[in-house]
Amino acid sequence: MAHIELDNPLPGIAGLMTYRPETAGPLAELAEVLLRGPSTLSRGERELIAAHVSELNSCTFCASSHAAFAAAQLPGDHEPSPKLSALLHVAAAVAESGRAVTAELVARAREAGATDLELHDTVLIAAAFCMMNRYVDGLGTWAPDDPAAYAAMAPRIVAEGYRALR
Amino acid sequence: MAHIELDNPLPGIAGLMTYRPETAGPLAELAEVLLRGPSTLSRGERELIAAHVSELNSCTFCASSHAAFAAAQLPGDHEPSPKLSALLHVAAAVAESGRAVTAELVARAREAGATDLELHDTVLIAAAFCMMNRYVDGLGTWAPDDPAAYAAMAPRIVAEGYRALR
Repeated sequence: MAHIELDNPLPGIAGLMTYRPETAGPLAELAEVLLRGPSTLSRGERELIAAHVSELNSCTFCASSHAAFAAAQLPGDHEPSPKLSALLHVAAAVAESGRAVTAELVARAREAGATDLELHDTVLIAAAFCMMNRYVDGLGTWAPDDPAAYAAMAPRIVAEGYRALR
Repeated sequence: MAHIELDNPLPGIAGLMTYRPETAGPLAELAEVLLRGPSTLSRGERELIAAHVSELNSCTFCASSHAAFAAAQLPGDHEPSPKLSALLHVAAAVAESGRAVTAELVARAREAGATDLELHDTVLIAAAFCMMNRYVDGLGTWAPDDPAAYAAMAPRIVAEGYRALR
Protein backbone atom coordinates (compact mmCIF):
# COMPACT_ATOMS: atom_id res chain seq x y z
CA MET A 1 0.00 0.00 0.00
CA ALA A 2 1.28 3.44 -0.87
CA HIS A 3 2.27 5.82 1.95
CA ILE A 4 -0.50 8.23 0.86
CA GLU A 5 -4.08 7.72 -0.39
CA LEU A 6 -3.81 7.96 -4.18
CA ASP A 7 -7.48 7.29 -4.96
CA ASN A 8 -6.55 5.23 -8.01
CA PRO A 9 -5.43 1.61 -8.51
CA LEU A 10 -2.50 2.33 -10.88
CA PRO A 11 1.01 1.00 -10.09
CA GLY A 12 4.32 2.88 -9.87
CA ILE A 13 4.60 6.34 -11.33
CA ALA A 14 1.27 5.99 -13.17
CA GLY A 15 -0.60 6.18 -9.85
CA LEU A 16 1.43 9.24 -8.79
CA MET A 17 0.95 11.07 -12.09
CA THR A 18 -2.81 10.56 -11.89
CA TYR A 19 -2.79 11.81 -8.27
CA ARG A 20 -0.84 15.00 -9.05
CA PRO A 21 -1.34 16.16 -12.68
CA GLU A 22 0.41 19.51 -12.00
CA THR A 23 3.76 17.73 -11.59
CA ALA A 24 2.95 14.93 -14.05
CA GLY A 25 3.13 17.43 -16.93
CA PRO A 26 6.78 18.46 -16.58
CA LEU A 27 7.82 14.92 -15.57
CA ALA A 28 6.28 13.43 -18.72
CA GLU A 29 7.77 16.21 -20.87
CA LEU A 30 11.23 15.62 -19.40
CA ALA A 31 11.01 11.86 -20.05
CA GLU A 32 9.80 12.49 -23.61
CA VAL A 33 12.64 14.89 -24.50
CA LEU A 34 15.34 12.77 -22.85
CA LEU A 35 14.25 9.29 -23.92
CA ARG A 36 12.49 9.94 -27.25
CA GLY A 37 13.50 13.40 -28.52
CA PRO A 38 16.02 13.92 -31.37
CA SER A 39 19.35 12.31 -30.37
CA THR A 40 22.30 10.40 -31.79
CA LEU A 41 21.58 7.77 -29.09
CA SER A 42 18.73 5.48 -30.16
CA ARG A 43 15.54 5.31 -28.11
CA GLY A 44 16.41 1.73 -27.12
CA GLU A 45 19.89 2.79 -25.93
CA ARG A 46 18.44 5.61 -23.83
CA GLU A 47 15.87 3.24 -22.29
CA LEU A 48 18.78 0.91 -21.38
CA ILE A 49 20.48 3.77 -19.48
CA ALA A 50 17.20 4.43 -17.61
CA ALA A 51 16.74 0.72 -16.83
CA HIS A 52 20.37 0.33 -15.66
CA VAL A 53 20.15 3.26 -13.21
CA SER A 54 16.76 2.03 -11.94
CA GLU A 55 18.23 -1.43 -11.35
CA LEU A 56 21.15 0.11 -9.41
CA ASN A 57 18.59 2.01 -7.31
CA SER A 58 16.61 -1.25 -6.75
CA CYS A 59 13.44 0.34 -8.14
CA THR A 60 11.43 -2.65 -9.36
CA PHE A 61 8.72 -0.71 -11.19
CA CYS A 62 11.10 1.58 -13.14
CA ALA A 63 13.74 -1.11 -13.82
CA SER A 64 11.15 -3.59 -15.13
CA SER A 65 9.23 -1.09 -17.23
CA HIS A 66 12.23 0.60 -18.86
CA ALA A 67 13.91 -2.79 -19.50
CA ALA A 68 10.71 -3.77 -21.32
CA PHE A 69 10.70 -0.49 -23.28
CA ALA A 70 14.39 -1.03 -24.19
CA ALA A 71 13.73 -4.61 -25.33
CA ALA A 72 10.83 -3.42 -27.49
CA GLN A 73 13.09 -0.94 -29.31
CA LEU A 74 16.39 -2.81 -29.67
CA PRO A 75 17.31 -5.65 -32.05
CA GLY A 76 16.96 -9.09 -30.38
CA ASP A 77 20.69 -9.79 -30.37
CA HIS A 78 21.64 -6.36 -28.99
CA GLU A 79 25.10 -6.05 -27.44
CA PRO A 80 25.89 -2.57 -26.10
CA SER A 81 28.48 -0.79 -28.31
CA PRO A 82 31.77 0.27 -26.63
CA LYS A 83 30.36 3.83 -26.60
CA LEU A 84 27.14 2.78 -24.86
CA SER A 85 29.10 0.63 -22.38
CA ALA A 86 31.25 3.64 -21.45
CA LEU A 87 28.12 5.82 -21.08
CA LEU A 88 26.54 3.16 -18.84
CA HIS A 89 29.62 3.48 -16.58
CA VAL A 90 29.08 7.25 -16.43
CA ALA A 91 25.40 6.66 -15.60
CA ALA A 92 26.32 4.23 -12.80
CA ALA A 93 28.61 6.89 -11.29
CA VAL A 94 25.75 9.43 -11.40
CA ALA A 95 23.55 6.95 -9.50
CA GLU A 96 26.16 6.94 -6.73
CA SER A 97 26.71 10.73 -6.67
CA GLY A 98 27.26 13.57 -9.12
CA ARG A 99 30.72 13.89 -7.65
CA ALA A 100 31.53 10.28 -8.59
CA VAL A 101 31.66 11.24 -12.29
CA THR A 102 35.40 11.60 -12.83
CA ALA A 103 37.32 13.21 -15.68
CA GLU A 104 38.66 9.72 -16.42
CA LEU A 105 35.18 8.19 -16.88
CA VAL A 106 34.28 11.09 -19.17
CA ALA A 107 37.54 10.73 -21.14
CA ARG A 108 36.92 6.99 -21.63
CA ALA A 109 33.44 7.66 -23.00
CA ARG A 110 34.83 10.31 -25.32
CA GLU A 111 37.54 7.91 -26.57
CA ALA A 112 34.79 5.41 -27.32
CA GLY A 113 33.12 8.05 -29.52
CA ALA A 114 30.71 9.84 -27.17
CA THR A 115 29.96 13.49 -27.98
CA ASP A 116 29.46 16.29 -25.46
CA LEU A 117 25.71 16.21 -26.05
CA GLU A 118 25.59 12.43 -25.53
CA LEU A 119 27.52 12.87 -22.28
CA HIS A 120 25.16 15.64 -21.20
CA ASP A 121 22.07 13.58 -21.95
CA THR A 122 23.48 10.44 -20.30
CA VAL A 123 24.17 12.36 -17.08
CA LEU A 124 20.71 13.95 -17.13
CA ILE A 125 18.92 10.66 -17.95
CA ALA A 126 20.75 8.98 -15.06
CA ALA A 127 20.02 11.92 -12.73
CA ALA A 128 16.36 12.00 -13.81
CA PHE A 129 15.97 8.33 -12.96
CA CYS A 130 17.53 8.93 -9.55
CA MET A 131 14.52 11.24 -9.16
CA MET A 132 11.89 8.93 -10.68
CA ASN A 133 13.12 5.92 -8.64
CA ARG A 134 13.02 7.88 -5.37
CA TYR A 135 9.58 9.29 -6.23
CA VAL A 136 8.13 5.84 -6.97
CA ASP A 137 9.67 4.06 -3.96
CA GLY A 138 9.65 7.02 -1.56
CA LEU A 139 5.86 7.05 -1.71
CA GLY A 140 5.64 3.27 -1.42
CA THR A 141 3.78 2.61 -4.69
CA TRP A 142 3.10 -0.97 -5.76
CA ALA A 143 4.75 -2.79 -8.68
CA PRO A 144 3.35 -5.76 -10.62
CA ASP A 145 5.23 -9.05 -10.09
CA ASP A 146 4.46 -10.47 -13.53
CA PRO A 147 7.00 -9.44 -16.23
CA ALA A 148 4.15 -9.66 -18.75
CA ALA A 149 2.56 -6.60 -17.12
CA TYR A 150 5.58 -4.48 -18.09
CA ALA A 151 5.84 -5.93 -21.60
CA ALA A 152 2.17 -5.04 -22.04
CA MET A 153 2.94 -1.35 -21.36
CA ALA A 154 5.61 -1.16 -24.07
CA PRO A 155 3.50 -0.87 -27.25
CA ARG A 156 1.74 2.28 -26.01
CA ILE A 157 4.99 3.96 -24.95
CA VAL A 158 6.64 3.01 -28.27
CA ALA A 159 3.69 4.32 -30.29
CA GLU A 160 2.56 7.35 -28.29
CA GLY A 161 5.45 8.27 -25.99
CA TYR A 162 5.49 9.69 -22.48
CA ARG A 163 3.31 12.74 -23.10
CA ALA A 164 0.35 10.34 -23.39
CA LEU A 165 0.79 9.52 -19.67
CA ARG A 166 -0.12 13.01 -18.50
CA MET B 1 36.07 23.31 -15.70
CA ALA B 2 32.93 21.46 -16.70
CA HIS B 3 33.26 17.95 -18.19
CA ILE B 4 31.75 19.22 -21.47
CA GLU B 5 32.14 22.44 -23.48
CA LEU B 6 29.13 24.56 -22.48
CA ASP B 7 30.01 27.64 -24.57
CA ASN B 8 28.78 29.96 -21.82
CA PRO B 9 30.32 31.28 -18.58
CA LEU B 10 27.32 30.63 -16.29
CA PRO B 11 27.73 28.59 -13.08
CA GLY B 12 25.82 25.51 -11.90
CA ILE B 13 22.52 24.64 -13.50
CA ALA B 14 22.32 28.02 -15.27
CA GLY B 15 25.16 26.99 -17.59
CA LEU B 16 23.50 23.63 -18.29
CA MET B 17 20.07 25.15 -18.97
CA THR B 18 21.58 27.59 -21.46
CA TYR B 19 23.47 24.71 -23.14
CA ARG B 20 20.38 22.50 -23.53
CA PRO B 21 17.13 24.53 -23.72
CA GLU B 22 15.09 21.46 -24.72
CA THR B 23 15.54 19.97 -21.24
CA ALA B 24 15.68 23.35 -19.45
CA GLY B 25 11.97 23.88 -20.18
CA PRO B 26 10.57 20.91 -18.24
CA LEU B 27 13.21 21.29 -15.48
CA ALA B 28 12.24 24.93 -14.89
CA GLU B 29 8.54 24.07 -15.02
CA LEU B 30 9.01 21.27 -12.46
CA ALA B 31 10.90 23.59 -10.09
CA GLU B 32 8.24 26.29 -10.50
CA VAL B 33 5.32 23.96 -9.71
CA LEU B 34 7.07 22.25 -6.79
CA LEU B 35 8.75 25.25 -5.14
CA ARG B 36 6.39 28.12 -6.01
CA GLY B 37 3.03 26.67 -7.14
CA PRO B 38 -0.08 26.67 -4.91
CA SER B 39 0.70 24.74 -1.70
CA THR B 40 0.01 24.72 2.03
CA LEU B 41 3.82 24.70 2.50
CA SER B 42 5.25 28.21 2.12
CA ARG B 43 7.75 28.96 -0.63
CA GLY B 44 10.44 29.48 2.00
CA GLU B 45 9.69 26.08 3.60
CA ARG B 46 9.91 24.34 0.24
CA GLU B 47 13.22 26.06 -0.54
CA LEU B 48 14.50 24.79 2.84
CA ILE B 49 13.67 21.20 1.82
CA ALA B 50 15.55 21.73 -1.47
CA ALA B 51 18.54 23.27 0.34
CA HIS B 52 18.64 20.47 2.95
CA VAL B 53 18.70 17.69 0.34
CA SER B 54 21.33 19.56 -1.70
CA GLU B 55 23.47 19.90 1.42
CA LEU B 56 23.15 16.15 2.12
CA ASN B 57 24.22 15.52 -1.49
CA SER B 58 27.19 17.92 -1.03
CA CYS B 59 26.10 20.00 -4.02
CA THR B 60 27.62 23.43 -3.30
CA PHE B 61 25.83 25.34 -6.06
CA CYS B 62 22.33 24.02 -5.27
CA ALA B 63 22.73 24.08 -1.47
CA SER B 64 24.04 27.67 -1.48
CA SER B 65 21.49 29.01 -3.95
CA HIS B 66 18.41 27.39 -2.40
CA ALA B 67 19.54 28.35 1.12
CA ALA B 68 19.70 31.94 -0.15
CA PHE B 69 16.24 31.63 -1.75
CA ALA B 70 14.87 30.19 1.53
CA ALA B 71 16.43 33.00 3.59
CA ALA B 72 14.92 35.59 1.25
CA GLN B 73 11.42 34.18 1.81
CA LEU B 74 11.37 33.25 5.51
CA PRO B 75 11.14 35.52 8.56
CA GLY B 76 14.56 36.29 10.07
CA ASP B 77 13.96 34.30 13.25
CA HIS B 78 12.59 31.25 11.44
CA GLU B 79 12.58 27.98 13.41
CA PRO B 80 11.19 25.04 11.44
CA SER B 81 7.76 23.98 12.78
CA PRO B 82 7.40 20.40 14.10
CA LYS B 83 5.63 19.57 10.80
CA LEU B 84 8.47 20.96 8.67
CA SER B 85 11.05 19.18 10.86
CA ALA B 86 9.27 15.86 10.30
CA LEU B 87 9.08 16.54 6.55
CA LEU B 88 12.82 17.34 6.50
CA HIS B 89 13.41 13.87 8.00
CA VAL B 90 11.35 12.33 5.19
CA ALA B 91 13.36 14.35 2.63
CA ALA B 92 16.65 13.15 4.15
CA ALA B 93 15.47 9.54 3.79
CA VAL B 94 14.63 10.19 0.12
CA ALA B 95 18.17 11.51 -0.41
CA GLU B 96 19.49 8.16 0.82
CA SER B 97 17.05 6.00 -1.18
CA GLY B 98 13.34 5.87 -1.96
CA ARG B 99 13.24 2.65 0.02
CA ALA B 100 14.56 4.45 3.12
CA VAL B 101 11.21 6.25 3.54
CA THR B 102 9.54 4.11 6.20
CA ALA B 103 5.91 3.97 7.30
CA GLU B 104 7.14 5.26 10.66
CA LEU B 105 8.73 8.41 9.18
CA VAL B 106 5.51 9.05 7.27
CA ALA B 107 3.37 8.45 10.38
CA ARG B 108 5.48 10.89 12.40
CA ALA B 109 5.04 13.59 9.75
CA ARG B 110 1.30 12.95 9.70
CA GLU B 111 1.11 13.19 13.53
CA ALA B 112 2.87 16.56 13.25
CA GLY B 113 0.09 17.72 10.91
CA ALA B 114 1.39 16.88 7.41
CA THR B 115 -1.25 16.13 4.77
CA ASP B 116 -0.98 13.53 2.02
CA LEU B 117 -0.31 16.26 -0.55
CA GLU B 118 2.44 17.79 1.62
CA LEU B 119 4.01 14.33 1.96
CA HIS B 120 3.77 13.81 -1.80
CA ASP B 121 5.35 17.16 -2.58
CA THR B 122 8.10 16.72 0.02
CA VAL B 123 9.10 13.37 -1.48
CA LEU B 124 9.03 14.79 -5.02
CA ILE B 125 10.97 17.96 -4.07
CA ALA B 126 13.63 15.79 -2.38
CA ALA B 127 13.73 13.39 -5.34
CA ALA B 128 13.91 16.29 -7.83
CA PHE B 129 16.91 17.73 -5.98
CA CYS B 130 18.61 14.33 -6.06
CA MET B 131 18.32 14.84 -9.85
CA MET B 132 19.36 18.52 -9.94
CA ASN B 133 22.37 17.89 -7.64
CA ARG B 134 23.60 14.96 -9.78
CA TYR B 135 23.06 16.96 -12.97
CA VAL B 136 25.04 19.95 -11.69
CA ASP B 137 27.93 17.94 -10.17
CA GLY B 138 27.88 15.03 -12.66
CA LEU B 139 28.80 17.48 -15.42
CA GLY B 140 31.41 19.20 -13.27
CA THR B 141 29.93 22.71 -13.42
CA TRP B 142 31.54 25.49 -11.38
CA ALA B 143 30.08 27.16 -8.29
CA PRO B 144 30.86 30.66 -6.97
CA ASP B 145 32.76 30.70 -3.65
CA ASP B 146 31.32 34.01 -2.46
CA PRO B 147 27.99 33.67 -0.56
CA ALA B 148 27.08 37.13 -1.90
CA ALA B 149 26.84 35.64 -5.41
CA TYR B 150 23.96 33.39 -4.28
CA ALA B 151 22.21 36.13 -2.30
CA ALA B 152 22.36 38.24 -5.46
CA MET B 153 20.36 35.59 -7.40
CA ALA B 154 17.50 35.58 -4.87
CA PRO B 155 15.57 38.76 -5.81
CA ARG B 156 15.04 37.58 -9.40
CA ILE B 157 13.86 34.11 -8.32
CA VAL B 158 11.55 35.62 -5.69
CA ALA B 159 10.09 38.12 -8.17
CA GLU B 160 10.01 36.12 -11.42
CA GLY B 161 10.33 32.46 -10.46
CA TYR B 162 12.02 29.54 -12.19
CA ARG B 163 10.28 29.85 -15.56
CA ALA B 164 12.38 33.00 -16.16
CA LEU B 165 15.49 30.77 -16.24
CA ARG B 166 14.45 28.96 -19.40
